[in-house]
Amino acid sequence: MSDQLSPRAVVLLSGGLDSATVLAMAIAQGYETYALSFDYGQRHQVELVAARRVVTALGAKQHRILNFDLTQWGGSALTDRSLDVPESPSEGIPVTYVPARNTIFLSLALAWAETLGANSIFAGMNAVDYSGYPDCRPEYVAAFQTMARLATRAGVEAADNQSQLTIRTPIIHMSKADIVKAGTALGIDYGITVSCYQADAEGRACGRCDSCRLRREGFDAAGIPDPTRYA
Amino acid sequence: MSDQLSPRAVVLLSGGLDSATVLAMAIAQGYETYALSFDYGQRHQVELVAARRVVTALGAKQHRILNFDLTQWGGSALTDRSLDVPESPSEGIPVTYVPARNTIFLSLALAWAETLGANSIFAGMNAVDYSGYPDCRPEYVAAFQTMARLATRAGVEAADNQSQLTIRTPIIHMSKADIVKAGTALGIDYGITVSCYQADAEGRACGRCDSCRLRREGFDAAGIPDPTRYA
Repeated sequence: MSDQLSPRAVVLLSGGLDSATVLAMAIAQGYETYALSFDYGQRHQVELVAARRVVTALGAKQHRILNFDLTQWGGSALTDRSLDVPESPSEGIPVTYVPARNTIFLSLALAWAETLGANSIFAGMNAVDYSGYPDCRPEYVAAFQTMARLATRAGVEAADNQSQLTIRTPIIHMSKADIVKAGTALGIDYGITVSCYQADAEGRACGRCDSCRLRREGFDAAGIPDPTRYA
Repeated sequence: MSDQLSPRAVVLLSGGLDSATVLAMAIAQGYETYALSFDYGQRHQVELVAARRVVTALGAKQHRILNFDLTQWGGSALTDRSLDVPESPSEGIPVTYVPARNTIFLSLALAWAETLGANSIFAGMNAVDYSGYPDCRPEYVAAFQTMARLATRAGVEAADNQSQLTIRTPIIHMSKADIVKAGTALGIDYGITVSCYQADAEGRACGRCDSCRLRREGFDAAGIPDPTRYA
């Protein structure tokens, strides 16, 4: 039925620096990419505007934004506006951790991947910067993949290992500086991305939250001028 | 802070026979129950009306209905109205299978459980009736639990095994007749539940789809009068 030459991949895209880099990597590796973003009631809704800009700039095959409302139960500074976004590093799991967020994101990506017949999901988890987030660790990603292969039609029917679903996390072990260098080499203009947890309505970054701090340090360490628009 | 005596559990509740039975079991086992239903664009929206009736009748502590739209990508007779619900048994994975549905449901339950500090999720998967659904198999449930323990704050911080999250599927190996008997013993009026994949707006069942057929056979085998309202 299909004259498809490129394998299909669903790519989780937040609109931030990491996921934009991962999308560029997936495209560079020859995948036909299906970008998936979420409006889950996050404080930094402006990242969805950034996600659209990234898709336009990099050229994904399709882009969907799925809505669901995690503010119903809060539990994170990103979904409960009565909690402040911290502006200095903290010990342990930070208050910006959203309970089970990556599991929800990957599950919805899995559903779309199964519908598309895509056997790859690309995700921008990073275990270096986000060592405090349980769902950014490689052992978590591996366990999700094991579960996903049992969850789906392809997992039941696939005769060979190659057609099994794979969760690809190409930047999981990279420093922010190396991510910035890799993305710059792929032609990304990071000025269109938004990483800040509390960016203003025009997408300008606060420059003070954990996410801003990690991003700025990445550009500094990479020796690449920081194109971020700060408020 | 809390004078909580009962452990908390999130219970997936569709409004059908199976999940109503599971909610009654969780309550009977002494859990403080948090029922979670989903409006995912399913054809049989009337099941959400049934879910509310079940909560009222059985007395869960809270009930939330979360919205997200799986009709965006379809892939199932339950989310794509251009596909017919089959009215005779089929081989393999049926067209009513919704890609990754249980994974999405369990992931959202996991998020609420983590926020509540609940260490149990009850779910009505059944491997006898739904042997064609990959995400109803015990090995899938076990893999989800392994992943979930790695995904969450509790999984990282829990010092003992008892506080680790457990996915409880009390009816997974039960026949429909045994489920009906167990629920009847717990006082459930199954007349308020809706299992039909294509129930009408008043919640009356078609009597012909797989789900209706399994349900009717269950009452017959249990020797209990079928209280289902048929169209």
